[in-house]
Amino acid sequence: MVRLRIDLAYDGTDFKGWARQPGLRTVQAELETALDTVLRRSSTSVTCAGRTDTGVHARGQVAHVDLSEEVLRAVAGRRAADAGAEATEVLARRLNGLLPDDVRIRRVVPAASGFDARFSALWRRYAYRIDDSGTADPLARGHVLSWPRPLDLDAMNTAAAPLLGEHDFAAFCKRREGATTVRRVLALHVGRLPEGLVVATVQADAFCHHMVRSLMGCLVRVGEGRREPAWVREILRAGRRDPAVPVLAAHGLVLEEVRYPPDDALADQADATRRVRGRPEPAEGTDDG
Amino acid sequence: MVRLRIDLAYDGTDFKGWARQPGLRTVQAELETALDTVLRRSSTSVTCAGRTDTGVHARGQVAHVDLSEEVLRAVAGRRAADAGAEATEVLARRLNGLLPDDVRIRRVVPAASGFDARFSALWRRYAYRIDDSGTADPLARGHVLSWPRPLDLDAMNTAAAPLLGEHDFAAFCKRREGATTVRRVLALHVGRLPEGLVVATVQADAFCHHMVRSLMGCLVRVGEGRREPAWVREILRAGRRDPAVPVLAAHGLVLEEVRYPPDDALADQADATRRVRGRPEPAEGTDDG
Repeated sequence: MVRLRIDLAYDGTDFKGWARQPGLRTVQAELETALDTVLRRSSTSVTCAGRTDTGVHARGQVAHVDLSEEVLRAVAGRRAADAGAEATEVLARRLNGLLPDDVRIRRVVPAASGFDARFSALWRRYAYRIDDSGTADPLARGHVLSWPRPLDLDAMNTAAAPLLGEHDFAAFCKRREGATTVRRVLALHVGRLPEGLVVATVQADAFCHHMVRSLMGCLVRVGEGRREPAWVREILRAGRRDPAVPVLAAHGLVLEEVRYPPDDALADQADATRRVRGRPEPAEGTDDG
Repeated sequence: MVRLRIDLAYDGTDFKGWARQPGLRTVQAELETALDTVLRRSSTSVTCAGRTDTGVHARGQVAHVDLSEEVLRAVAGRRAADAGAEATEVLARRLNGLLPDDVRIRRVVPAASGFDARFSALWRRYAYRIDDSGTADPLARGHVLSWPRPLDLDAMNTAAAPLLGEHDFAAFCKRREGATTVRRVLALHVGRLPEGLVVATVQADAFCHHMVRSLMGCLVRVGEGRREPAWVREILRAGRRDPAVPVLAAHGLVLEEVRYPPDDALADQADATRRVRGRPEPAEGTDDG
């Protein structure tokens, strides 16, 4: 067997999220169907780093798929004598030919030994974009939230600071029985681009369901002056889901990057993550964003 | 009568261009209908700086509309005692409340004396965006052309240089009886953003129909090595529409900015433009992009 790493990007607007669900258009289903076609087999199964929710986008999603060397060699067919790196390039090109234009394969490469798209990841980085100018760019409205009032970024960053580090983020997570809600937030800051757009960056070892959008909902409440910065720390400390925590719209959120350790640490990283967070994949729904 | 200047932006994807056409969804029709509703009158008529073609976007479109001071005062109604600047702000807000989210009003202000959105303009600036990386960002696919081969920007800029200045651009223009095709190109260069996106900037006193997209079609032929840079100058010199000139797709094109002279020169500028290019508005179609 060979494991392939697939880097991909998608516009989440018309998807019911990443995870395959019967009868719904999901990224996983589109990708698996395209793989089935190219590989001339059925029931290809892919695993991804961040199972994004309905309407959430990705520029840096990472997935893996396992297949036999024979199947991989067959992809290249007569077009390339060498079934090595060349076969993965052929696969990427053919997938892009089959997939709808809201999903794009960035690259396909043989994965290093021990690589697991989900469990080997060191961290995920999401960006949440907000236009608070009052005159949002209609060309960006698919992935930028338009906010009617100006946001105070200093207040938002003050509120964000206590969230850094390892905490139980249950207050910001959609409840799921038996799953830990302890996460390590490695970066959380809100900046403004030269042209005025607000971009929040949230980087953590992993995210529970609705976590980024709940964090952003709280920070925006602070940014528009409806709450004091200290309120966010109180929410965190309460340790359980608070109905006062607003979940910001999905379409402002983009999974930008997933980072993995050096090749020789991939297997250890995957083992360590499985010990902490390993659990059966939920039958429905998603866990990130 | 007061004349108002309206700055607006739109995503051209779902519009049959700017100009009103019976039974078709156009930006002009949407804007005029919204104005009719807010102003409680009918047959409001707006004039714009750049009548963009089907599928072409705008971030910096400018239009004007004439209305009586009474009608303008009535817009503010009881919400503001002062019918001056305040009424225009109320108008802008109400228009944005009525318009679909692919058209956004950026501002409405009383126009200076002599202002004409079309004839007072000194120049229009368009941008054409191309992703030649092979792995285009699906979030930008609505306003960025994906090109399958890498482009040589040096060759494109070499080809573009002879187009600067005043020329008869008939070779790049959709033919229209009796209309001059002489234009002055003030800037035409192709650059690459740090993240790799190709952005061509074309600035001219005005554009004839299909001009930017025809220029870009030629430059892309050069950029991918299928033509020598000198070919573009030959096309220009031939002076008539050449079927070898490809018209690039509309969705990569954005009207970014329209520039006007200082207030005291607006009327003279409008008079000068009318002498050179004044003609009845065509019943159908567009003249820019």
